[in-house]
This record gives sequence, structure tokens and C-alpha cells, in this order.
Amino acid sequence: MAKQAQNSMQSALDLVQAVQQNEMVPQAAVEMCLGAIEAHEPIVKAFCCLDPAMALEAAMHSTGPLKGICVAIKDVFDTADMPTEYNSPIYRGYQPRADASLVSTIRGLGASIIGKSVTTEFAFFSPGPTTNPNNPDYSPGGSSSGSAAAVAAGMVPLAIGTQTGGSVIRPAAFCGITGYKPSFGFLPKSGLKNLSPSLDTAGLFATHVRDVAFFAALLTGRRLRVDGGVQGAPKIGLIKTHHWADVDHDMQEGLEIAARLAVRSGATVIELNFDDIIMRAFSSHQIIHDYEASRALAWEHREHPDKLSTLITETLEFGKTIPNADYDEALAQAAEARKIIADQLSSVDVFLTPSAPGIAPKGLASTGSSLFNRVWTLLHLPCVNVPGLRGSNDMPIGMQIVGPYLEDRKTLAAAAWLENVLRKSLS
Amino acid sequence: MAKQAQNSMQSALDLVQAVQQNEMVPQAAVEMCLGAIEAHEPIVKAFCCLDPAMALEAAMHSTGPLKGICVAIKDVFDTADMPTEYNSPIYRGYQPRADASLVSTIRGLGASIIGKSVTTEFAFFSPGPTTNPNNPDYSPGGSSSGSAAAVAAGMVPLAIGTQTGGSVIRPAAFCGITGYKPSFGFLPKSGLKNLSPSLDTAGLFATHVRDVAFFAALLTGRRLRVDGGVQGAPKIGLIKTHHWADVDHDMQEGLEIAARLAVRSGATVIELNFDDIIMRAFSSHQIIHDYEASRALAWEHREHPDKLSTLITETLEFGKTIPNADYDEALAQAAEARKIIADQLSSVDVFLTPSAPGIAPKGLASTGSSLFNRVWTLLHLPCVNVPGLRGSNDMPIGMQIVGPYLEDRKTLAAAAWLENVLRKSLS
Repeated sequence: MAKQAQNSMQSALDLVQAVQQNEMVPQAAVEMCLGAIEAHEPIVKAFCCLDPAMALEAAMHSTGPLKGICVAIKDVFDTADMPTEYNSPIYRGYQPRADASLVSTIRGLGASIIGKSVTTEFAFFSPGPTTNPNNPDYSPGGSSSGSAAAVAAGMVPLAIGTQTGGSVIRPAAFCGITGYKPSFGFLPKSGLKNLSPSLDTAGLFATHVRDVAFFAALLTGRRLRVDGGVQGAPKIGLIKTHHWADVDHDMQEGLEIAARLAVRSGATVIELNFDDIIMRAFSSHQIIHDYEASRALAWEHREHPDKLSTLITETLEFGKTIPNADYDEALAQAAEARKIIADQLSSVDVFLTPSAPGIAPKGLASTGSSLFNRVWTLLHLPCVNVPGLRGSNDMPIGMQIVGPYLEDRKTLAAAAWLENVLRKSLS
Repeated sequence: MAKQAQNSMQSALDLVQAVQQNEMVPQAAVEMCLGAIEAHEPIVKAFCCLDPAMALEAAMHSTGPLKGICVAIKDVFDTADMPTEYNSPIYRGYQPRADASLVSTIRGLGASIIGKSVTTEFAFFSPGPTTNPNNPDYSPGGSSSGSAAAVAAGMVPLAIGTQTGGSVIRPAAFCGITGYKPSFGFLPKSGLKNLSPSLDTAGLFATHVRDVAFFAALLTGRRLRVDGGVQGAPKIGLIKTHHWADVDHDMQEGLEIAARLAVRSGATVIELNFDDIIMRAFSSHQIIHDYEASRALAWEHREHPDKLSTLITETLEFGKTIPNADYDEALAQAAEARKIIADQLSSVDVFLTPSAPGIAPKGLASTGSSLFNRVWTLLHLPCVNVPGLRGSNDMPIGMQIVGPYLEDRKTLAAAAWLENVLRKSLS
């Protein structure tokens, strides 16, 4: 099952080219996805809602650049034609009136929105039923569990998700695909269920870095593509972070292998330490997150306390106790940390750092830790999970490339370069 | 009609005290509002939805500090028990599942949510049917037309609205009440229909500055009340802005009277000029606004172009043509302007500047200009419209107090001081 799923992963760029060059009709591209869904969905459980007929219909009538390309939408984005439930019993059967901005933009590009993918409860930590396509005994990560798993299982070439802590980069790392959390503000958030508005960031999933860059370029109209020729070797700052003691043996080895292969392929790699201010920013993330979540989910907490998980209830209750002064201070600290990190990033092209503490956790009780993601989310920097390496039990390990604010093109280019280096060495 | 409405304006603080000291049962406070609604709503048309029975019900069973206090909710905030239509035919009859965060918080304080107040289409410029309670031949201003008019007509003591350009301060000025646009981020926006997320700011309406400060203190848990004793005379920076040629005779005179009365009561008033960077920030506002609106309303524009006004359609179409580089630059300019203005504000306590070019426009075709509001919204600064002065045809003119970011207490205190000075001189 694991190998089969991996082998059938679809490159969105390859599919788009096949459709454009009339090697494949758009409906055939959708049917390929439907075949993969039929084969893998019973075990992977990536979707909470599927609409194959609508996906085929869209492929037949669309004229946009993504015609025939199936996209999975994390079930925290409103959809006008499918229920939106945030994996919460409070919203069972809830049918929004409108599409979220990002969903409407994807439809406008001609894509086939094939279904809503499983999220943890309100994109926080309580997991859904999704399993890891590499091995169903492992978690796919979260909170964008279904989006990452659907791409990894070859059920869709593209998916969207969100990251407030580590919800794009972590599941991409655990599933062995590319996850891209853009600079804060790059992708529109209207119609996205808020968790912590200062941190919530829409993100993308695809097989390769070039696929995700292609998708991002279409969605934003920005020059983000990295498929047009060879990328130069970047100057990389290696950041083990002050949580290095928390990484597993696979990640320790993986990061060293990635750095060594990068050097061998012409990159400059220098090890950098986190500034103290960045270290302190870790606690700012939690303060901002919990304070804002207690406001964002005020109605749910007030009207349906019995339908919330204990985990989220505790967070919302803690959030209410945070003094306004602490919240203001956390926002100020985050702003200060953004200046410091910009300085540090000016000496290199990008950072290389773990995407997660290691391989996916075993079992489905936990979607894993966002320890290696939260601070980058807070700093609003573009992050890419680069797939390719594997650890224990042949499970994926993810390398994270982090770039300067708004320099997403440079970040994606460095990630594509590293992906290429890793692939060559492993083939 | 005009005089009658003005005379029956309700101070929220006075009402709360009357209820707390058992001088009035909560239901009686609600019934007083219902009486005013019966008397004035046929001409003022402040509400698109009213639920007197629910308001009375809440007053009977609530235990919070706002029991018996009626609040009007601008129809851009989701309500779980009343339709939410954004004054757009696209959303006719739309019933959200949840309350917006701010609505849920208001309910949690025990208030009676009596109805949804008229907004312009999507809080942009196309007006609703609301008239000015001072004289129905005049516009109430917009986009929070119904919220300002409902307070001015004595139909509710408190209301909430939003400001993306000038939609809180302007209608408050035209209707002759207090409007308060807090520092960006003070009030939660989850469940608020997005127009331009970097600018959209929730705001409050009440009769006096002390009432709006009391309401804000309850909503945020911040020390914002200004009703506890005498405020010291502030150091005021008088800013005529580079749009001074656009103000009418009433405002020219009004601002000079306000400054003179302030000096006579012990304030220091110095005239300040806008920095060039602040002047340039005006154009940043439009770029950010139109770019973001075209994303926020992507679904409406794509699926229901025939149901949008020409005005908003043109804005959305223009927004789509704005290059990403211009948007990025506008955001960077706004960030720079925020630093400059912080420096300028450090030499005084607050700015005194027009709330609008003058009295309300005659007729209902236009809700007036946001020329004197947009830059403050962009700068994320707390603004208060101070009522009291009147111009031609006895229509209100509004004085705007603007304070430093996050120093809302200082801003409200200076506004309360000025309101007091104006009232004394006019009595």
C-alpha cells in the first residue's frame, strides 16, 4: 500500500502539460484521481466530503490553466457547494453561502474541486481519522492532515491547507511531499475559519517544489515559478534551533546528510545560532495563539462547550486569562523578532532547519509537534518542506527551507535546488 | 422630529446605573428603546432586521453588566439568530450558523441584541435607506449608517460598526454622537464580513465619550473607562491636513472654535503639519483597499456580477489590475508611515482634526467623503468623534481626536475632556 501510493504521486505541472498538449483530456486527469481515491481512500481517509461528479463536470466545461486538475480543500475553508464542518460536531452539515476567496480563485483557474480534506478540530490538535499514506500505522501530521495525505497517496496533485503553528510544513514532512507556507498575507484568507488571525496562514501542498511554486504563481499572479531552468546553489544558514535535543536520530542524521549533500553540490552552508530574541518569540506564539483563539471561537465556547474537545476547551479557557498587557507585549516582541531575523537572513539566502522533530508519530492519537514550525509562522516567513529523505521504517523526514519575508521566489528556488540535490543522491 | 430624537438620546452608563440601582427593571430599559423605535424608525430606517421579543427575553434572563441595554449590530457581523445580508441581494435571507466573536461577547455581557442595523453594500459606498435623525433630508453617513442613526435617534444606547475608510467616525460626526474606532486589533473581527482585512476595524457608537469608553472597557477587559473623575487638559496637536481646502465653512469655523475653547479651558494647542510620508500614505490606503477588496469579494464578483452595484464592481475590477509590487510597496509605506506618525504623536497627547469635511451631505445619494478618516484607519490609530458643535441648519459637525497606537485610554480621556469643554460652552 505505502509503495503503491508513493509511486502514483502526481506532478501537477506534468499533468497540466499533458492536458495542454492534448496528450490527455481533462476528464481523464480527473478519472485518474478518482481511481487513486477508490484504491487508497478506504485506508488513508483523507476526505470528509467527496464530489466526483462535480469534479468531472468542472473538467468538462472549464477553460482555465488548471482544467482537469483535482484540488483538495482543507475543511476550514468555506465552500458554497459542499458542507464545511471544521471537524467539529457543532458544524455538522453546515453549508456556507459563499466560497472562501482562495476556493473561488482556484475555481476561476479551472480546477476541479474534488472534495474537502480532513482537518483536526478547528485546525488545532484533536486529530481526525486520516492515516499516513506511507504506512497507515503512522500519523499523517496535522492540522492539514487530509490535504497532505491526499497528495501523498496520489489522490490529488494539489491541495490547500493552513498553518497557525506547524499545520502545513509538519504534515508535508510526515507524508513525504512538498508543503509551502507563503509569506503571511500572500494568499487571501476571507472565508477561512479563524483560529488566530495574526498567525493563520493559507498554504499549499503538491508533489514537488516546482508544482507548488507553479500553483502559487497562478494563485497570486506573482513570479514564483521555479521550473524554468537550473537554480544556482544557495548560501544556506543551518539552524539547529535551541530544540535540537528534541529531534530524533533520523532527523539528526537527515539534517547532516542534507547539509553535506548541499555542500557537495556547490552550496555554502554555515551554522547559525538563534538570537535570544527569537528564542523568546517562542513564548509570544503561544500567548498570541491562545489569546486570539479564545476570541475567534468565542461563540463555540459560549454556546456549545459540551461539543468541544478537552484540549481546545483548555486552550480557550487559558486564552481568556491572558492579560491584555501580555498579549500587547507578545505582539511587540514578535514585531521586534521580525526585524532581528531579517538582519540574520541578510547574511545568507535561506535557512535550512528541521521541518519536524523526526518521522511521523506512530498511531493516530497525536499529529506530532509543531516545535520546529511555530516560530517561523510567528515571524511570517516563507517556509517550504523539501521531501526526499527517509528514516526509520522507510518513513519520510522533511527538510525545511525558510526564506526572507516576501522573498518567496528565492525560498522556493532554494527548496527546488535542495530537492534536486537530494533526489540525485538517492537515485 | 429632529429635536425629539436628539432629546431622547440615551446614555448607556446612566441606563446601566439605573438598572443596577434598581431604579429601572431591565425590561423597562428595553421597552424605552422599543418606544423610540416605534416613534422614529419609520422615518430614520436604521434597521434591516428587528427582534423586540428576543431583546425583551434577553433582558429578563440575563445577569451580565449590560442587562437591559439594547445594542444594534451593523449588518456585516454574523448573527446566529438573525439574517445577515451585508445590504447585498446576493445574501438576501442568509442565516449564518454562528455569532461573530464581538456579537457573542456582547451577548455574554447580558445585552439585548435588538436588531441588525443598515450598512452600505458590503460596507463600501452604495447607501441604504437610512436618514439622518437630525433631519431626514440629510445622509446619516456611512457605511455604519444604521448604527449611528439608531443611537442618534435614541433607539439604542449602544451600537457596533466597522471602519475601513471612514465608516465609524464619519456617520458619528454627521449624526452628532460619539463614534470610536479603536487601535487596529483591539476588537475581534472573526465573523465579520471582510472588505479589506488590513484596514477593517470594528468600532463602537454611543451618546457620550464616557459611554463608548465604558462599552469598550467591558468588551476588551482593558482599562478604558473615563467616567471616574476629572480629566486633565491635554496637549493637542491641531492638524488641518493637506485637505483643508476641502472643508466647508462650518468645519473651518467649528475646528477653530473647538481649538479656542480648548485653549481657554487650559489645553495647549499647537498646529502641526503632516509629514510628506503621511501624505503619500493616502494613496497607499486606496491601493491596499482595492487590492484586498478584489480578493475578499472574489466569490461575489465571480458568481454574482449582476447583483453588485456599479461602484463596487469598478472597485473590484480596478483592484484586480493592481500589480503585486504596488500592493507590497503600499504595505511597506504604511508601515513606515506608522513609525513617522508615532514620532509626531510623541510631542503631544493627541491630535485634533476634522471628522469629516463638514455637515452631512443633503439627500441620500452619497454617504459623504472619508477624506479625513482614511489615513488614520491606515495608520491603525485610535480615533474618536467628539459631538457637540453644530453648523448650517443646526446639523452636527464632528471634531476628531486621534491618539497614539494602543493608547486608547489617553485618546478617550482627551475626547471626553473636549466633549465636556464643548458642552459647557454651548449650555
